[in-house]
Amino acid sequence: MSRANRTDHIRLTSHPEPGRTAAFPIHWGAADARTRGPIIGTVSRAGDRNVIGSHGGSYAMYRALAVSAGALDPIRRPDLTNTFPAATIGPFPQWSDPAKIVALDPWGHLVAENFGKDIAEGIDIRPSIAVTRARLDLPEIREALAAKRLRADGDVVHANGSVSVVKIAIDPVWYLPGLAERFATNETELRRTLFEQTAGMFPELVTRPDMKVFLPPIGGTTVYMFGDVTKLPDHRTKITCRVHDECNGSDVFGSDICTCRPYLIHGIEESARGAQEGGLGLVIYNRKEGRALGEVTKFLVYNARKRQEDGDAAAAYFERTECVADAYVEIAAKKAAGYYSTDIAPEKDVDGVVGRSLEKY
Amino acid sequence: MSRANRTDHIRLTSHPEPGRTAAFPIHWGAADARTRGPIIGTVSRAGDRNVIGSHGGSYAMYRALAVSAGALDPIRRPDLTNTFPAATIGPFPQWSDPAKIVALDPWGHLVAENFGKDIAEGIDIRPSIAVTRARLDLPEIREALAAKRLRADGDVVHANGSVSVVKIAIDPVWYLPGLAERFATNETELRRTLFEQTAGMFPELVTRPDMKVFLPPIGGTTVYMFGDVTKLPDHRTKITCRVHDECNGSDVFGSDICTCRPYLIHGIEESARGAQEGGLGLVIYNRKEGRALGEVTKFLVYNARKRQEDGDAAAAYFERTECVADAYVEIAAKKAAGYYSTDIAPEKDVDGVVGRSLEKY
Repeated sequence: MSRANRTDHIRLTSHPEPGRTAAFPIHWGAADARTRGPIIGTVSRAGDRNVIGSHGGSYAMYRALAVSAGALDPIRRPDLTNTFPAATIGPFPQWSDPAKIVALDPWGHLVAENFGKDIAEGIDIRPSIAVTRARLDLPEIREALAAKRLRADGDVVHANGSVSVVKIAIDPVWYLPGLAERFATNETELRRTLFEQTAGMFPELVTRPDMKVFLPPIGGTTVYMFGDVTKLPDHRTKITCRVHDECNGSDVFGSDICTCRPYLIHGIEESARGAQEGGLGLVIYNRKEGRALGEVTKFLVYNARKRQEDGDAAAAYFERTECVADAYVEIAAKKAAGYYSTDIAPEKDVDGVVGRSLEKY
Repeated sequence: MSRANRTDHIRLTSHPEPGRTAAFPIHWGAADARTRGPIIGTVSRAGDRNVIGSHGGSYAMYRALAVSAGALDPIRRPDLTNTFPAATIGPFPQWSDPAKIVALDPWGHLVAENFGKDIAEGIDIRPSIAVTRARLDLPEIREALAAKRLRADGDVVHANGSVSVVKIAIDPVWYLPGLAERFATNETELRRTLFEQTAGMFPELVTRPDMKVFLPPIGGTTVYMFGDVTKLPDHRTKITCRVHDECNGSDVFGSDICTCRPYLIHGIEESARGAQEGGLGLVIYNRKEGRALGEVTKFLVYNARKRQEDGDAAAAYFERTECVADAYVEIAAKKAAGYYSTDIAPEKDVDGVVGRSLEKY
């Protein structure tokens, strides 16, 4: 099997080459994709690279394993034939405003369209966004139909309860100067902190200040769109939107310690209803488990909460470092905090609202 | 806010220090946790580190962002009070066999128990595994009860349809020599490939051959156990097991292009039934979307499949680079491949089985 960059010399990091002009400069926020320039995170032709990191988020690690096992040719390029978006999204004015979008590539779904010639010439340019269509088949939506809360219209919601959507997978593409601004720090400090606080991941964060774009090894975002997506830019369009952070334990397994799936399903039902009423539904799913704490930390917090002296009390809910809570505890705590209108005084409302103890599972 | 390692000098990578003996050596596969040694991926006291990478998988990147935004004190240590496992798992003989376990720390849930004194002295040792208890509340399980396929026993399955489980979150901890063996390569080659094919992630992979353990920035695994977990080591225990690779589109949103959630739910129902019959149920959920391709690649493959000349044909299913398929197409393809006993000849069986085209969503 062919092997890329096979030399006895291992380059630990790269440095800007004085005088050398970038083969593929990136002008973040330019008016069109070609002026902005392609995002090139290839690992097979180092000279073409114009970003820090590589494509696929954390899946780059698995790609490396496949190469290591001899199962994948490191110089193999994806064949993008017929992969073009299944729905037309944009372009929108925000795409050429460098301050508006800093954590994804707004042109990421159109690389074959904008850089087909370069790709044909062997430049390894890959999409960071994919747009397809799907039918969702959810028991809760079938129940909503049976309960007449939702009706089939044959367009958004079908007689068998399935729901038509356009879905968009988005990999993170970070424009570091813009990201630094969002976090009220400076780019140099952000780069150094990202490097040091990950125990030395990507030295190019500090050695390549000329590279402004970073493909971080983290999960991405999936956007589910309900209704006529061409209405998106129309300011008269009523948008129903749920922004949801991944909670695998509830979203997939229905763990009753939190209300994440119920809220998500409610968002899907309302999005479908909004689309039926001529609006547009949006469910935005961020792949960052438990406010990006991960499940190990989350489960440790569950144990600590369940074992606190007074039990898993709603009154103490907001003192927790973790947002998830036993459904009843969470709702009572939120009611007390004024999430819902209530005539009952907060204290009275949450008194005695205690979640299941670890012995009661 | 206090700031760790604040100097004008940035260390791009580390190297073994000749003559220096490791403060915390790791003896992978040792008989007990203290002899094996703690896994220390701290970023606040470099001298204590004995692994490459840092804790939390890809969430280390978000931790870095929080520090960068001034929202998190970089030297803050987790308080592990009351986080100890909610069920006793092991120790088992396999834990002290360096060849049996190479991708996780079998002692990862017991750091407070085994290294409490060191932690109290300020050594930053963190759990890579957490064990808690939960109740699963799934509409499909309630349907199974209503359909009398499953019965409530008040122990595993409750009258309201909820199911009791012990759940375990596991972060990856890679023992590189063992991993190299699994992939039929050598450790040096594996380290170099992991470094090069990720575009230079963690130079310590090549500069620290003395560090044999790596905490990769990828998703982990969640294990759901049904029934009496103390029966796990008993060879007479009948185990019902489903190993499931994450498919967010189906597992959460019920996208009908594949059968991932139906198979997962079937695994949960059978696991509960197995536990009711005195056995043990295991559902192992690997956080690697679409065979670790990620959703962007997955959605691109959907589009390509939907647009192939003869449509999304079952007959062509196994030629695809991606495993997911429209439910009917997948089942027909699998039947043709002999997944299910059938009297019908494969060719006849799959002829004309074509999935929904992109226009029909």
